[in-house]
Amino acid sequence: MYSKNVEDVFKSKSIKTGDIIKVKAAVGSFEGMLMPRSELGDGDIIVLKLDNGYNIGIRFGEGASIEKIRDGPMPAAASMPSGSSHNPNLPKVALIYTGGTIGSKIDYATGGVYMLTKPEELMAEVPELAGIANIEIRHLMSMASEDMGSAEWKAIAAEVFKAASEGARGIVVTIGTDTMHYASAALSFMLKDLRIPVILTGAQRSSDRGSSDAFTNLICAVQLAAKSEIGEVGICMHANSSDNYCSFIRGTKARKMHTSSRDAFRPINSKPLARVYPEGNIEYYSQYRKVADIGDAKPILGFEDKVALIKTHPNLDPNVLDYYVNEGYKGIILEGTGLGHVPTFTSDPKRSWLEHVKNAISKGVVVGMTSQCIYGRVNTNVYRTLRLLSAAGVVYCEDMTPETAYVKLGFLLANYPGKAGEMLNKNMVGEINEKTEIDWLV
Amino acid sequence: MYSKNVEDVFKSKSIKTGDIIKVKAAVGSFEGMLMPRSELGDGDIIVLKLDNGYNIGIRFGEGASIEKIRDGPMPAAASMPSGSSHNPNLPKVALIYTGGTIGSKIDYATGGVYMLTKPEELMAEVPELAGIANIEIRHLMSMASEDMGSAEWKAIAAEVFKAASEGARGIVVTIGTDTMHYASAALSFMLKDLRIPVILTGAQRSSDRGSSDAFTNLICAVQLAAKSEIGEVGICMHANSSDNYCSFIRGTKARKMHTSSRDAFRPINSKPLARVYPEGNIEYYSQYRKVADIGDAKPILGFEDKVALIKTHPNLDPNVLDYYVNEGYKGIILEGTGLGHVPTFTSDPKRSWLEHVKNAISKGVVVGMTSQCIYGRVNTNVYRTLRLLSAAGVVYCEDMTPETAYVKLGFLLANYPGKAGEMLNKNMVGEINEKTEIDWLV
Repeated sequence: MYSKNVEDVFKSKSIKTGDIIKVKAAVGSFEGMLMPRSELGDGDIIVLKLDNGYNIGIRFGEGASIEKIRDGPMPAAASMPSGSSHNPNLPKVALIYTGGTIGSKIDYATGGVYMLTKPEELMAEVPELAGIANIEIRHLMSMASEDMGSAEWKAIAAEVFKAASEGARGIVVTIGTDTMHYASAALSFMLKDLRIPVILTGAQRSSDRGSSDAFTNLICAVQLAAKSEIGEVGICMHANSSDNYCSFIRGTKARKMHTSSRDAFRPINSKPLARVYPEGNIEYYSQYRKVADIGDAKPILGFEDKVALIKTHPNLDPNVLDYYVNEGYKGIILEGTGLGHVPTFTSDPKRSWLEHVKNAISKGVVVGMTSQCIYGRVNTNVYRTLRLLSAAGVVYCEDMTPETAYVKLGFLLANYPGKAGEMLNKNMVGEINEKTEIDWLV
Repeated sequence: MYSKNVEDVFKSKSIKTGDIIKVKAAVGSFEGMLMPRSELGDGDIIVLKLDNGYNIGIRFGEGASIEKIRDGPMPAAASMPSGSSHNPNLPKVALIYTGGTIGSKIDYATGGVYMLTKPEELMAEVPELAGIANIEIRHLMSMASEDMGSAEWKAIAAEVFKAASEGARGIVVTIGTDTMHYASAALSFMLKDLRIPVILTGAQRSSDRGSSDAFTNLICAVQLAAKSEIGEVGICMHANSSDNYCSFIRGTKARKMHTSSRDAFRPINSKPLARVYPEGNIEYYSQYRKVADIGDAKPILGFEDKVALIKTHPNLDPNVLDYYVNEGYKGIILEGTGLGHVPTFTSDPKRSWLEHVKNAISKGVVVGMTSQCIYGRVNTNVYRTLRLLSAAGVVYCEDMTPETAYVKLGFLLANYPGKAGEMLNKNMVGEINEKTEIDWLV
């Protein structure tokens, strides 16, 4: 709600949501469309959508003034969530809302970020979506992605499948970015037989920051869900630091590679599947699985939580492996160095990992090897110590990221008992390139 | 040693090491300089240095022939190690040999790689070095870097200091690449008061592979040690996929980012310090510490091994933190998600890390936070949960890589008792940029 000060000015000048107005304040003078006010936050903050698409929050303090430029149409805000704008010529896209920064706003009073309780508030700010698809909002949860785990991945996979069964042509999942690449890998495996576009998107900066990526990401994601020929799970996020297009990255080949940049998500050991423009153009870059009918696809929702990912480093005591074995863990992904090394020298057995790895394997634990280099492929052929580990039964995970290998092992152990080891380094949904597609792409 | 077959042909045609010869064999016809034969390996393999600088091993099998094109000079091989080629106009550079791929060769018979026992063998293949500096070889150890830890870092730091005390203008350390960036961080702290060039280099591919990066890396490293104005520890490796120059990267801002590419080492959240050409040109890119006299500098060799780096991931049970606390660990670096998150939600205490982190800190363990995004900076100001962790005493490590933060914490705990926590996120040797120097450079 606006403060009485602001309300009074709006009333006296007949200003309503959607009008084009000019606000002069201490920070400067801005002209744009008056956005709907969210329920929380400082009532003295006026939010404008500027011509460049960015939203800005301006404090209406002492000496500030407001001028009406012209009447606007009522924004789509009021009508869209009610579904009255249904267009029979557009496909149906389900938008599954799970929380994250894309569903958050700055509280301009404190500078903190709070999570929206109504995804409709976000939708209302992107009237363009109504021209792309009939959006069906499904509010599944409101969580930060750092708190998500296998329980949430199962819930999202089940909801995606339900939406698909109920006729959605494609699905958009809005989700926090911190663990988006873990979630996209989990959905890739859990929904491996569902051949429709399942698009994860989010924002590195909340929708009311000047530099927010929320709108472009959301619009591109809906374009993919509505039009793409790619029947796979993937991530749609900014491809570069400007605002003109997004990358669509296979769900098992993506990684968050920057804490704050809008183009943080990068394909690893792989090209993007496609480039997507907000206007709807889609350029296809890679081989992909084509969209197809749902048929008799079913989600596969098992996940073994007793799996750990251990990043090894110099001096790391191999006893931590025994700790996990003693705790009843069923699988371990090692994030080794270089081509897939852990310390294996024999001069100082206390520092060698080899016997500890053999012990874990002898107790039935599946041990997979990936590289902390992130880019490139592990390889057992170059050095003798690698052959020792491989001979001991360590599964070298080819060009999979450690994160995808972790998720895949949890998925395999729950759903293919006794076969997880042999399936771990065989391609299932595009998570392994048999040949290196590109040597180095960042 | 060559096989009798090969020896006989060489004898009959008066061919000696260094001559330009042509070998016709099943794989093709090659012309180049006959390289000295290493003591191990298949005696039927003839190694030529081609015009493009690459070495190739050719099997002298049935139907193969050898032709002498012209006599070569005796290569520097024979004379250099003896020190007889001392040039009083050139600076003295110490080359500390520790092992790794740069000191390895392929056994062409088995395809495996074995480690040279004599660094002189490598030196002999790079006669260019004699024109840059008077090289003093110090054979410290022959180890693969995945086996190295704090004991080796201390030994290398002590040897660097000794060589500097004995008059070396600069130092080159040849070392394996797997953990080179951990070692370079350790040397940066241990030698923080030594203002001479300390250049770590190595090879992604052994010196007798056609595509080896060993020679360019070694030549550029010696150029830096002999001429550079930068009195810091850093890594000198291929800057791109061609063979024309190397990057010199600050020792605390480097990371191996590809399992096999020659340009695997990248500066993280920082520009390279310099670009170096094999011919000796050095282009400076960043602020650096200038070369200066050794003065009363001393190496600082303490390192606390009871430090662990834990990469967090969805579903990871926070009990692993208690495991380390119970094992008597003094420091933990968390590799969190995004801006520095671990699961902190309160709805499911079993999955929340907050109480476990508080418990560790209450027992005197220093807990630092970094990001598995690798690029970018952790930040406690954006989200409420980050403020909770920060308020609990977690030290947010700015734009340090997890690897550098791990090494720094081990260094601080041993050498600055009681002050490690407050020093961890204050810049010491360039490991923290107060302001983000560049937003994204890969």
